[in-house]
Parts: sequence; C-alpha cells; structure tokens
Amino acid sequence: MLRMNITLPPAVDRDTAKLVARMTDIVGRENVLTATAELATYECDGFTIAKTKPDVVVFPLTTAHIVAIVKACNELDVPFMARGAGTSLAGGCVPVGGGVMIALARMKTIHEVNVRDRYAVVDPGVVNVWLTNALKAHGYHYAPDPSSQGACTIGGNVATNSGGPHTLKYGVTVNHILGVELVLPSGELVTLGGPTEDSPGYDLVGTVVGSEGTFGVVSKVWVRLTRNPEAYRTLLGVFENIDDATNAISGIIGSGIVPAALELLDSTILKAVEAAFKFGFPMDAGAVLIMEVDGLNAGLQDEADRIEAIALQNNAREVRKANTEAERLALWKARKQAFGTIGRLGYPSYCTQDGVVPRTKLPQIMKFISATAAKYGIAICNVFHAGDGNIHPILMFDERDPVQVQRVLDASTDILTECINLGGSVTGEHGIGVEKLDFMPILFAQADLDCMVRLRTAFNPRNNCSPHKMLPTAGGCAEPAAIGATKPGRRAAV
Amino acid sequence: MLRMNITLPPAVDRDTAKLVARMTDIVGRENVLTATAELATYECDGFTIAKTKPDVVVFPLTTAHIVAIVKACNELDVPFMARGAGTSLAGGCVPVGGGVMIALARMKTIHEVNVRDRYAVVDPGVVNVWLTNALKAHGYHYAPDPSSQGACTIGGNVATNSGGPHTLKYGVTVNHILGVELVLPSGELVTLGGPTEDSPGYDLVGTVVGSEGTFGVVSKVWVRLTRNPEAYRTLLGVFENIDDATNAISGIIGSGIVPAALELLDSTILKAVEAAFKFGFPMDAGAVLIMEVDGLNAGLQDEADRIEAIALQNNAREVRKANTEAERLALWKARKQAFGTIGRLGYPSYCTQDGVVPRTKLPQIMKFISATAAKYGIAICNVFHAGDGNIHPILMFDERDPVQVQRVLDASTDILTECINLGGSVTGEHGIGVEKLDFMPILFAQADLDCMVRLRTAFNPRNNCSPHKMLPTAGGCAEPAAIGATKPGRRAAV
Repeated sequence: MLRMNITLPPAVDRDTAKLVARMTDIVGRENVLTATAELATYECDGFTIAKTKPDVVVFPLTTAHIVAIVKACNELDVPFMARGAGTSLAGGCVPVGGGVMIALARMKTIHEVNVRDRYAVVDPGVVNVWLTNALKAHGYHYAPDPSSQGACTIGGNVATNSGGPHTLKYGVTVNHILGVELVLPSGELVTLGGPTEDSPGYDLVGTVVGSEGTFGVVSKVWVRLTRNPEAYRTLLGVFENIDDATNAISGIIGSGIVPAALELLDSTILKAVEAAFKFGFPMDAGAVLIMEVDGLNAGLQDEADRIEAIALQNNAREVRKANTEAERLALWKARKQAFGTIGRLGYPSYCTQDGVVPRTKLPQIMKFISATAAKYGIAICNVFHAGDGNIHPILMFDERDPVQVQRVLDASTDILTECINLGGSVTGEHGIGVEKLDFMPILFAQADLDCMVRLRTAFNPRNNCSPHKMLPTAGGCAEPAAIGATKPGRRAAV
Repeated sequence: MLRMNITLPPAVDRDTAKLVARMTDIVGRENVLTATAELATYECDGFTIAKTKPDVVVFPLTTAHIVAIVKACNELDVPFMARGAGTSLAGGCVPVGGGVMIALARMKTIHEVNVRDRYAVVDPGVVNVWLTNALKAHGYHYAPDPSSQGACTIGGNVATNSGGPHTLKYGVTVNHILGVELVLPSGELVTLGGPTEDSPGYDLVGTVVGSEGTFGVVSKVWVRLTRNPEAYRTLLGVFENIDDATNAISGIIGSGIVPAALELLDSTILKAVEAAFKFGFPMDAGAVLIMEVDGLNAGLQDEADRIEAIALQNNAREVRKANTEAERLALWKARKQAFGTIGRLGYPSYCTQDGVVPRTKLPQIMKFISATAAKYGIAICNVFHAGDGNIHPILMFDERDPVQVQRVLDASTDILTECINLGGSVTGEHGIGVEKLDFMPILFAQADLDCMVRLRTAFNPRNNCSPHKMLPTAGGCAEPAAIGATKPGRRAAV
C-alpha cells in the first residue's frame, strides 16, 4: 500500500514469443498463460496498489518442471518468481520487472502424512487448511493458521513466515517447518533439513523460511504436525474500551498463563462482524477480546477461571463462554472472516496494515491509531493478534479518490513510524515485500542491511529470483553494498 | 573424539612477537597470554583428542576490543576464533591452524534485565547459570540448561545452539535468542535482531545461532527470559530394562502431555551416580527415567498422575515422587552431575557421544549400543535426553592405551552411523566441530554442502574466522565448491 508511488523498474522489452515457446516445451500449452486478460490476475497480490504484469505465467506440475523453468530463465536472462495463492498483503508476489511467474497452484499433493514421527511432506501449492483437514481423522493439525488459511498455500506461508491467531502459543511458520526442497536461482536442486529435528550444519531451513522467495523456489516442504489439544476453553471478554482490554492482556500473560490465542476486535469491526454473522456481540462495547486456552482437559477450567477473573479485574463488563464446539467455531469464524465483513462498513476499499509493538505498548499505539484516524479524517478499525503485540489497523477508503488514497498512505506511514518509535517494527507477518522497502533503512543500520545483501547474494547471486523485494539495495554478486558504510539505524543504537 | 587421526593443517610459521605486540596494544599486557604453559589450556575443549595450540590468547573487555583484534588479524593475515568456557565436546573451540584465540571469559557483564518486556542483554562471557541466578528474585530464568551450565557461557551456547534437559518443552538456544551484536570476520560490527520479536528481513539471528563461530565473534546477546513455572511435579520411574523405559517415553508423548523433561539413566551410570550422591537409586534397576512436568499448579497433579499410570503400564517397577523442592533438586543434581561421577566407574577417560534418532527408534539404538559395547569389549553407559531422541552414550576407556582408544573411535563411528541409518543424525547439540566433519558428506548431498559453503562465504569470505570447522570443504570467496556436483547424500534420497 505504502509504495503506491514507488518507481518500479522500467519494463524490459523481452522476446515473449521465445519465452512462451520455451515454457510450453517444458510444461505443455495447458500450463502456460499469456493472454493479457489472464495475466492481469497475476499483476498484484491480496492488497497492493503497486501492479505490474508478468511476461508469462507458468504452472509447473513437478520439481523437474521448476528446475527446467529456472534453468531456461537463466539461459534467456529473464527474472522469475514464485507465487502461491497471491494472498500476500505487502506486494511480496507482485512481479516487479516482469519476467516469468512460476505459479505453484497446480502442485498440490500431500505426499505423505507420518503421524508416528509427526511430519507430513507436501507440495508448495497445498492450501494451508487442506493439510489440517487431511489430518483431522488422525487427531493432528498444522499449527500456523493465518486468517487466509482457506486460500493461502504452504509454500506462500514458508515465503512470508506466516503467523496467525494461534502464533501466541504455537509459534510462526518457521517453528513448524522441518525441511524444504529448494530450486536455487541457478536451477540447482537442494534439500535442506528433512523429516528429523535438529539437522547439523547451518540452519538453512530457518534462513529460507521468511526470505520472501528471494532464495529460490520451494518445491517441497516437510512440515511438523501438532497434536490437537484434548480440550479448549474459549472466552469472549466484553470491554468498555480498548485500554481495559489491552491491560487485561498484559495481566493474563503476566500471570504465567500462555493462552492459545488472544485476539482483539474493536467496536468498529465488531459492528461489521455482527452485521454479517449475528453472533450477538454487544454493539455498544468498546472492544472484545477472544481468549482461548487449550491443552489437556485437566486443569484447563482453572486456567479459564483465572483468565475470566483477570478480565473482570480489568473492568470487563462481562465474560461470555463458548459452551459448545459450535459456539467456539462461530466465534473463530467471526474472527477469521472479520476482514470479509469490512465491506459492510460502506467503504469500497481497505488497507490492512501490519505492525508490531512490545505488548506493553499496546495502549499507546491504540491511542495513536485513533488520533491518526482523526488527524486524516479517515476510518480505521482494528482486529489483531493482541497477545503478540501484532497490530492490524484496517484503513478504509475509496481507491478511486486520490485524496483518500494519499491520506491512507500518510496515515499508514505515521502508524508504522510510531511502531518503530515504540520499539517495535513495521511487519509482524505480512513481510516487507515491495511496500515497506523504505522502512528497512530506518529499522536497520547500513552494515546490517549489507549483511542481508551478502546473504541473498550467497543464494541468489544474479538477483534474478524475486528481484526488488525485501531489500532496498539491489547488489549483485560481485558488489554487495560497500562494507563499512556507517549510517546508523535504530538497531545500531540499542 | 572421532577425529583423533585427522590430519590437521600444518602449523604456519608466524611472527608471534609482532602479533603479541599488536594484541597487547589493543587490550594491555594483562589481557594477553603467550607462555607455552598458559597456551596449553587453550589447545583443546571439554573432550577432544585433537589438540593444537593458538599462537596467542587475548581477552577483550569490550566490543571495541574485539573489533580492533579482528581488524588486526585481517591486516596480519592470521586466523582467529572465539572461545567461551571451552566446554564444547566436538572440538568446536580447538584452534586448528593456530592464530589468535579470542577468549571471551572477561566480558561477563549482565547489562540489562528487562522483566516487563522479558529480555536481558548480556556479554558473551556470562556463564549460563549466572543469568538464571540473577533472575531468581524476579521469578524468571533463562531456559536452555546444558549439563555444563555452571561453566559454559551464553556466547558458547549461541555458537553451538546448546540444548539441555528442558529442551523437550522449552526448545534449544535459538528459541531463546532475540538478537546478537556480531563482529563480522571483516571487523565490521552488525546488530542482528534486538529486544523485540520477529525482526523483519532475513532471519540472520537464526542463521548465526549454531554456526559454531564461523560467522564472526558474538559480542553481545539479547536473550529471552522465561517465567518460572508456578509448580513442578518430578517423578522417578524405575524400570527393569531400557526397552520398558523407552516405551514409557513414547507412551507419555503419545498421550499429548509435553513434559518439561524426560531424562534416562541406564544401570551403569546409575551406579556411579549412586556412589557419588547416595540418592537411594535401586542398584538392580535396568534404567530410571526422570520425568518432570511444570506449569500452573492447576491440573499439574492430574498430568503427573497420568505419567505415573503410563510408566506403570509400561512395567515400571515403581514410580517415586520428589515430595519437596530439596528432593527435586537432589534428583536434578544427580542428573546434571552424572558426568562428573563417571570417574567412580574406574576408567581414567570417557568420551560422551552425541547422536539423534527418531524417538520411536530409541529401543533399537539402545540395543545397538549394547551390542557395540560387547563387540569391541568396552564399557558404555547412557544418560540422555530421551524425550528428544537425543542420545549420549558414554564410552569409557584409558586414553593411554592406543588399542582402547581405537576401539572407542570405531565404536563411536558405528553408533553414529547407525543413528544415520535409523533416520537420525550425528549430533543433537554438541555440534560438528572438527570431530564429526567426516559425517557431513554422508548426511548431506554435495549440493546441500555447497549451499552451506556459500552461506559461510557470505559472512566469512576469507574463511579466516574459525577455519576448519563444521564444513569438510574449505572454499574461499571466489571458489565455493563446484555447483552441480551430484554425489547424492542421505538427504537427497528422502
């Protein structure tokens, strides 16, 4: 969103016919898209104004296809990038500079489910929730559960190191990836990690997860399986204002309880959700908090009781309980589909921002967001992973009105800058993509960024794989940004 | 241990006087060691037969000292490496090729303890247990707890990604490191990560943790603090044989309980521990299992009861309970100081091996170890992190007898090879160091190793920082091992 005004590299005049012929040779005509109308689907992601078309979209069906595609791109000197479901929110899968888009949606096989040793082997195009569905009968699930889990793919989750409501207890994607098969930007195939834990040598798996596609194309993933909790207790705390709700969060965490999730919805989003789902949310509440604990049944009610007591101590008007699994699922449906209900608030467009503050700074950032909405005269609602300090202000506007767009850009910049000022950062889970490139030199010293460029160069020396992503400098193999440059960033001052 | 016969690079004839003068200029005479007798302490680690002296040992007191030392080493073209307490067990801190040993033992300040935001900032030379001691009054601790925690340093833990008994529930070192200040092999200073979670950009912190000192010298560490559990239940299961004990482990994990620790001691180590501590272990048991759960008091007794029931179902002769904190601490003292009691078994030397198997393969590897002991006519005892499948067979011998030494080498090789055959690996926490270099090409395909070399080259292009560690190939900046070599390793076949 923020990079709407970014100067994208000029389009390169390529011999598209030759490119398409090569790709067709590899995967067959039915797995190549070239028509302008078809390509338009692939020019943006879940929400990015920055748009740029790929020269061709190709759907590999096998790892061998990916290897051949990447080698052909190298030969023809064309950049390439992978795409999952395109649900990213920071421009991570926008094909800046054009080239070949490797769409992995047709590689969607779950190859193996090994419950005894607790791993599964999946294709990158497997949709997040398919895996959990496939595990249901075994009593297991795949823990990372982004709101987009019904659409987003495991490969995309690996690229952005996706989180979700249950990140608070279960960790982000990197905590659940045991290994990846990776087609390097050279076309070489490597296997990093695998079904067992704690592979010796450098932690290449951890390095690849979250690298936003800049280290190659992931062609297979070994994921860890998580046993379903024996039981849940899911509570809804109703608060008069956000301050009380965020204080309750600090109280719960401070008590030593690690909830499975602590999700906050403010009064605006509450209205939209209520209009859509008729859940019976109190329309005059300042905020509600979905509070969930899970685990063995033994002792769980005691934990839930303590959470309820802490919420009440922090002036919760009431604490409701999901008494049945159906009630629990309804509550989660309300949370996970909250974004889908925003349309009911009457704005044609919205921008979901992503920032992080130390949990103890939540009251401050919430006040700041509210003041920012007033300052720019725009509407902002909030629904976010409160337990992690991972905020998601949703800025509502009309994309057709350039004045409103500019206000949203400015407000976003203000909010993210304040996140940095409060000791946080500009993304908790959406990634840097192209939108937040400008923040990288604010967050990091030049030496730190140089270090990242050198790391990218190790995997991606020609920077022809997902170029113009994540790092503000280009930097080829022979020329990582000059060593010893001393512009200090925030981190350097810590 | 395994690399006793390794051909170490020939000693380089260096102008030691000049080197010492430069180091003295930087840190002062009192922080430089040069006498042969003094250097002898620094020629090996906790247990490695491979020995080689550094040219000089230097004790920096500040980050600026480290930067100056590293820059001087670059100028003088002398290799260098960091050392913590020297408790590593795979030769990780043996100064192969000599050069400057940067001993971090005098950088031992705890700079900040921030309980509210749950982090601390420490020097690399801070001893692991000092930090936990400093946190006691706050009700927090630093979670990774290697057996050597009374001596090993946080910096050394970062280098090897140390585990410990409580790794089962709380994870290894990388799960508790928020950031590092790192002096790159060029002398450049970078800050990776910091006090807040989920720093954007590549996960450089995760890359540095476990890199065995090959990416530079860590000069400061941001660690995560863990709240002390409200309560513990610590049980001792007494089994007739190891099979029953390992089956109990699978039963406990399979039930959905995540114990804080599951530690197995076999009958041989039991005798040594009993001789030392008079804990009252039954001397005729085949194995005992220390089983601990922790967390909120609510429900904990139920978990403990379930664990007891599972142990009894798996033929435990009895299950004892630590009824007081003193009894609990005595049990952990027995476990943590088990290695120190081995002397009582009558062997002058022992080699603690480190391997991993899928937890479900524990009965097989235990049988194999027993058969290997018989095959070579040596004594092997076992005390290990059973819940993780991380075995630590202890091979006992007399270092002065070359025949016995060779048998221990051969037996170690057999056991580690069997770990690989069972789908595991050759190190769970001690690292590759110099001892296990030969196993890397067995565990990994050449393309995978090339990838690691390229990563090292990004940080350490001249390979002058901790050379000859972790990776079997040398590989300078301009010449990472040839791309496309296709020797398949185990991982490639998965």
